[in-house]
Amino acid sequence: MTVEGTRRRITPEREAQLYEAVLDLLREVGYDALTMDAVATRTHASKATLYRQWGSKPELVVKALNAQRRVRPAEINTGTLRGDLRALVMVGDDQAMAEHSALMRSLFTATHNNPDLMTAFRELVIGPTTAEFDALLERAVARGEVPADRPALRYIPHMAIGALAMEELVTGELPTREFLLGYIDAVILPAVGL
Amino acid sequence: MTVEGTRRRITPEREAQLYEAVLDLLREVGYDALTMDAVATRTHASKATLYRQWGSKPELVVKALNAQRRVRPAEINTGTLRGDLRALVMVGDDQAMAEHSALMRSLFTATHNNPDLMTAFRELVIGPTTAEFDALLERAVARGEVPADRPALRYIPHMAIGALAMEELVTGELPTREFLLGYIDAVILPAVGL
Repeated sequence: MTVEGTRRRITPEREAQLYEAVLDLLREVGYDALTMDAVATRTHASKATLYRQWGSKPELVVKALNAQRRVRPAEINTGTLRGDLRALVMVGDDQAMAEHSALMRSLFTATHNNPDLMTAFRELVIGPTTAEFDALLERAVARGEVPADRPALRYIPHMAIGALAMEELVTGELPTREFLLGYIDAVILPAVGL
Repeated sequence: MTVEGTRRRITPEREAQLYEAVLDLLREVGYDALTMDAVATRTHASKATLYRQWGSKPELVVKALNAQRRVRPAEINTGTLRGDLRALVMVGDDQAMAEHSALMRSLFTATHNNPDLMTAFRELVIGPTTAEFDALLERAVARGEVPADRPALRYIPHMAIGALAMEELVTGELPTREFLLGYIDAVILPAVGL
């Protein structure tokens, strides 16, 4: 405890290992049945370490999910909004996208009965994603591709995340990269006037 | 039992009463904890009647939810697509919309662990809603407002239901009629070229 108390940060490798274990548990038992005890046991960490590093179960789980996302929109810069959106879709294959969608949906589902998780999900997943989209859209505005006052600009997260969430309900199929590329051309670009 | 066996249909009033009781129970205990026994007790109906009329718990619950929807898109005919979509939004007040959204979300959440409910939800909620949107869109095409091959036409449910589902996550506020009217003008109409 005193040794751990003096070490403020765990290594990135250890962090990645912990996040993997959390996502495995999430897949196996779901959010409600996932306990800090189970995470501690599986990763041979003390609960004190888990709570000191992450504060709470919702934060730990949401940060584990975030770590799985391998791309940030602001890091993509192809020179056009269409190119940037398509590049976002083409990171990772259909299987990685389906797996991430399934975890997102599982967690979104759990927000219904867990207000703390809802707060963490909004602050740590939706907020940064929206900010990252905004960075990409600001570049499109700066290039003169899209007028700054185009009303659809504030609804990009609704369109993009909503489409991912709805595809299985509407068609019974998981969203694929092909579906998202089609949706960008059919909906998002026309909505912003491109 | 024999008396009930000869009566094939319950009255519309009795049906409405049963649906109200099912929605009350859904609000009180959620889908997973809602039992046919509890419905039978609260409504003074026999379980045999419930199963004969609705077949299963998922069907009963989804049909109760459907009965709460007070408007069908195909019944609205204002002469323009914008008018039809706005009229859809303006049926019921913000509170009715928020309450229906909350029940929809509760049920959508429960589909995650209940494949039978997912099937019923898709067949009895999403399918008819999509068909009703299609009827409204077909009129817009027939009037010459929208070209029949406009790619966005097949994504109207993604846009409309996705926006409803995402608003609370993105902004922390429940969707209001004002939000939806803005979304129609900012996203849906431009996407179909209007």
